[in-house]
Amino acid sequence: MDASPNTAMSKPSTRRRGATAEEMSLQQREISVSEFFAKNRHLLGFDNARKSLLTAVKEAVDNALDACEEAGVLPDIRVELLQRSESRFKVTVRDNGPGIVRHQIENIFGRLLYGSKFHRLKMSRGQQGIGISAAGMYGLMTTGQPVLIISKTHRKKPAVEVLLKMDTSKNRADVVSETEHPEDDGLFADGHGTQVAIEMEGKYQQGRQSVDEYLDQTAIANPHAHITFITPSNETIEYKRGTNELPPEAKEILPHPKGIELGTLIQMIERTERSQVGGFLQEEFSRISPSVSKEICLKAGITPRTWVKNVGHAEAEGIYRAIQEAKIMAPATDCLVPIGTKALLSGLLKEVKAEFFTACTRPADVYRGNPFLIEVGLAFGGELPKDELIRVIRFANRVPLLYQQSACASFKAVLETAWRNYGISQSRASLPEGPIVVMIHMASVWVPFTSESKEAIADYDEIRKEMKLALQEVGRKLGIYLRRRQRMKHEGERRSIFERYLGEISQATEAITGTSAKRIYDSLLKVAKRKTEEADAVLDDEGKRVKDADPLGKDASVIILPARAIRANRADAPEETVSPGDSKRAAPGLFGDHEAAVKPKTPRRKG
Amino acid sequence: MDASPNTAMSKPSTRRRGATAEEMSLQQREISVSEFFAKNRHLLGFDNARKSLLTAVKEAVDNALDACEEAGVLPDIRVELLQRSESRFKVTVRDNGPGIVRHQIENIFGRLLYGSKFHRLKMSRGQQGIGISAAGMYGLMTTGQPVLIISKTHRKKPAVEVLLKMDTSKNRADVVSETEHPEDDGLFADGHGTQVAIEMEGKYQQGRQSVDEYLDQTAIANPHAHITFITPSNETIEYKRGTNELPPEAKEILPHPKGIELGTLIQMIERTERSQVGGFLQEEFSRISPSVSKEICLKAGITPRTWVKNVGHAEAEGIYRAIQEAKIMAPATDCLVPIGTKALLSGLLKEVKAEFFTACTRPADVYRGNPFLIEVGLAFGGELPKDELIRVIRFANRVPLLYQQSACASFKAVLETAWRNYGISQSRASLPEGPIVVMIHMASVWVPFTSESKEAIADYDEIRKEMKLALQEVGRKLGIYLRRRQRMKHEGERRSIFERYLGEISQATEAITGTSAKRIYDSLLKVAKRKTEEADAVLDDEGKRVKDADPLGKDASVIILPARAIRANRADAPEETVSPGDSKRAAPGLFGDHEAAVKPKTPRRKG
Repeated sequence: MDASPNTAMSKPSTRRRGATAEEMSLQQREISVSEFFAKNRHLLGFDNARKSLLTAVKEAVDNALDACEEAGVLPDIRVELLQRSESRFKVTVRDNGPGIVRHQIENIFGRLLYGSKFHRLKMSRGQQGIGISAAGMYGLMTTGQPVLIISKTHRKKPAVEVLLKMDTSKNRADVVSETEHPEDDGLFADGHGTQVAIEMEGKYQQGRQSVDEYLDQTAIANPHAHITFITPSNETIEYKRGTNELPPEAKEILPHPKGIELGTLIQMIERTERSQVGGFLQEEFSRISPSVSKEICLKAGITPRTWVKNVGHAEAEGIYRAIQEAKIMAPATDCLVPIGTKALLSGLLKEVKAEFFTACTRPADVYRGNPFLIEVGLAFGGELPKDELIRVIRFANRVPLLYQQSACASFKAVLETAWRNYGISQSRASLPEGPIVVMIHMASVWVPFTSESKEAIADYDEIRKEMKLALQEVGRKLGIYLRRRQRMKHEGERRSIFERYLGEISQATEAITGTSAKRIYDSLLKVAKRKTEEADAVLDDEGKRVKDADPLGKDASVIILPARAIRANRADAPEETVSPGDSKRAAPGLFGDHEAAVKPKTPRRKG
Repeated sequence: MDASPNTAMSKPSTRRRGATAEEMSLQQREISVSEFFAKNRHLLGFDNARKSLLTAVKEAVDNALDACEEAGVLPDIRVELLQRSESRFKVTVRDNGPGIVRHQIENIFGRLLYGSKFHRLKMSRGQQGIGISAAGMYGLMTTGQPVLIISKTHRKKPAVEVLLKMDTSKNRADVVSETEHPEDDGLFADGHGTQVAIEMEGKYQQGRQSVDEYLDQTAIANPHAHITFITPSNETIEYKRGTNELPPEAKEILPHPKGIELGTLIQMIERTERSQVGGFLQEEFSRISPSVSKEICLKAGITPRTWVKNVGHAEAEGIYRAIQEAKIMAPATDCLVPIGTKALLSGLLKEVKAEFFTACTRPADVYRGNPFLIEVGLAFGGELPKDELIRVIRFANRVPLLYQQSACASFKAVLETAWRNYGISQSRASLPEGPIVVMIHMASVWVPFTSESKEAIADYDEIRKEMKLALQEVGRKLGIYLRRRQRMKHEGERRSIFERYLGEISQATEAITGTSAKRIYDSLLKVAKRKTEEADAVLDDEGKRVKDADPLGKDASVIILPARAIRANRADAPEETVSPGDSKRAAPGLFGDHEAAVKPKTPRRKG
């Protein structure tokens, strides 16, 4: 430890001249949140040119959908990708939402961690107040160009144009210019809306994890939205509405007491404006009735009338422990709006050329005090590739999740499901193999994402468990179908053997007994048909089994298509299951083909 | 679109009474970075009780190692886990680093995004200024208890005790108390150091992804550190030093021009204190010589003497384009300090009971302007489990990465390596199967993590490519070894067949020719040995082949142990490859056993 500091500089040693505490303290300083995310922009989904383009579109469209729904407007969204040069695009997204009031524009588009969705518990697509300003920041970083926002909040107010640049060292927007632009009014047919345009480095490529796939899947999960997409090659692709009904509005809820931690409880007590403990508990949490509040207080050695200001650390710990022991109703679940079994089936039918479809919506559950629910759809067979790993399509609050699949709770749930029980092969620690597409949706007032880019759902036990239960439910139905299909095949073979000999047998029997060969043949055929009736299942009406004995027969969550319906682009698929707005677009991303192998599209041209 | 807003409230409709832009603007507000991370604490590694305990220890130990190395002190670190109740722990970490000056204590421990490592390009464990304050925030959230910091910056200055709580709504520390504590001086034998104590909800459980595994692996990658671990059951586990040499100090570097984006370049131009473009380019970037600077300026239509204040968007774009076209030296790589092949081998030898070991350190490469290098170690056979997926141990800047393996570039690199070429079986999209442990280290001035919890390396092409090259290098050597092992086995069988008949043949030949049976036997044996000499390979010295023809023979990056050396706890392993400080601890985490199945430890007891 006595090595001289000066001689130690040239090579490694036990002690070299290093920095002192004072020297090191001079290096220490604040990091602005925008500097942090600019340097770590991959955390926000801006990893590379292709993904960045997708992320920018995703953030803008998610915001547009949220704004429209909150304002009670059927969303009408226009996405345009204009290619400026080989690697530069202008992304423009316009909605018919309520618009944004002038003084909030620079906050919403020019600051990270600013928004309306973070401080409440309500099911929405955005939740962090980062996405769209991050897209603008990425555009500025890569092209030096400001973001242009046009907003119109009322039919009678002129549209406003604001041009802004984020100052990343301060996490604040520099407004380059702001002007009233009545001539932009034409952009907003409904009299209100927002348009954001960002110029950025990007790469447009169709296939897996593309803007196209994101919009395809968004249309599946949001059949109430009308989306128009103008591609870089100036094609117009329209996603028409599948329904003219807005989904029910998601309700905002208060935090559930069982999900609160001691330190957070103490902080809430320090900050509440209530004066008495009873009022604090009843007003700031959900599911605490006066009697529950009284029970908690008494267990904690206080009363509901105890002044909040007299609650110290010991009393707070008492309240915390009493909450853990108390019987409190599970959180309300009307705050969750599922996509629904019918819409899941309809989405899969629209996009996947399979023969068997099933879906289920689980009852709501709770993780860390947050209500959530899981829905799963499954499609099997038909034209899906047979010898590939199955495809998993993931959604959170109706938003498609296209990246980081293997980090997602849903992926782990698929891995942990015993697919072999349902007749599907699976190697260890791997996805099962077979012609299957699985669609998993999590709806929650707060989705725990594994990163700010919101690509994967964090692996909470409660969430994974619900996902597995839902997968087991659809898996069981698939298993029944596969066993029956196997049996049908077997019985079909038996019948064809019967039939092969029935003619000769009846001729011979006529010769022996004198009974008419025709009569013998008919009655033998009847017996053969009864014995092998399973083989007829496929011939029943439009592919749906209606026989009582059939466990899938009366199940509204199951659709089975005959082969010709699969091939015929669904024209003869059961009426009630095809959404009216089926856009008949080829959906290249959904057939298990690899990223590079994109099938040609036949988009509708417009104008 | 004319639906009356009032009747629409009860059920879904095309237009319901929703929020207006004005109403929505009232909801919008700033989110403090600490509020954000408190709600998203799983992003920081505080997902659950067990992982939180690990993360807190990891952040404190990583900081301690960084501080010691920066101050040029051989690290001496003490980690204590004191169990307060079933689910509550006090985590105390003490180091002999330089200490922290008084006024920075509340910033470093009480604010997220504050630190010395973010704004520079230098290889270090910490980089974000989040970790340790997040651990304190988690402790406060779960227990309501403040963080206690004791720091001593100089032998002659008394130790200072600061008790602080983070105000998450402001991302600032509330200092509860601060006092000079000369009686704490005894904690710091070297006259300086820092101790942080955090009370938190946690769960202590050994095995995979535990505090024990983290410290085990930290000791492997940091043989210059002395770590003492006091477990909750009051056992003392010591990790002695493997070397008394500090690793060379990592150098700080300037950004490389090729890694800069246009927008960032514009921002640098706006903020520089240089007055002329030439000076700006030469002083604020690495690898720009006066001639390169001149070349860039001329291409951009300006000169090195052009005033920075006259550079507009067009000129900046010109400079940016000229940089992309210019030939500029790759960044210096002396800023990277590899663990080194020798230390990798020694770490694996110490911890894994295998028969074959190899390692390689790749030359440095660059991603987004940031130099990095990859090192890989591989152990095969011996007592490693044969029929499980291989084990991957990951490090970034000498820090073990224990979570999110499947999201890590290293994991993808392992998946994409063609292991079958080396005789190892592998199913599609899965890790290979066999008795193998692979250790991957990435050293960089800026490691791109997939989340703030720094558990996985983001998947940059350049990084994955280097990892694959390194894996191929060790894989090839493994392949040679396995083929030779196969050949040896084969030749051994041939020889034993020869030998079985040699005696009889020589007897018979003597009877026929009269030549001495002994002589015939000896010469036949000589021929047989020459023909099957491969079978002797294993008998050469300590398991290492020295024959010229053997492709692994003279390779210092390969160690082959005879079976007895594997079993004998390495007592007779080759001298030069075992690090002097081998602590002889059982390393339960490294044998491929599952999380639950922890082998008993035989730790040294102390005191």
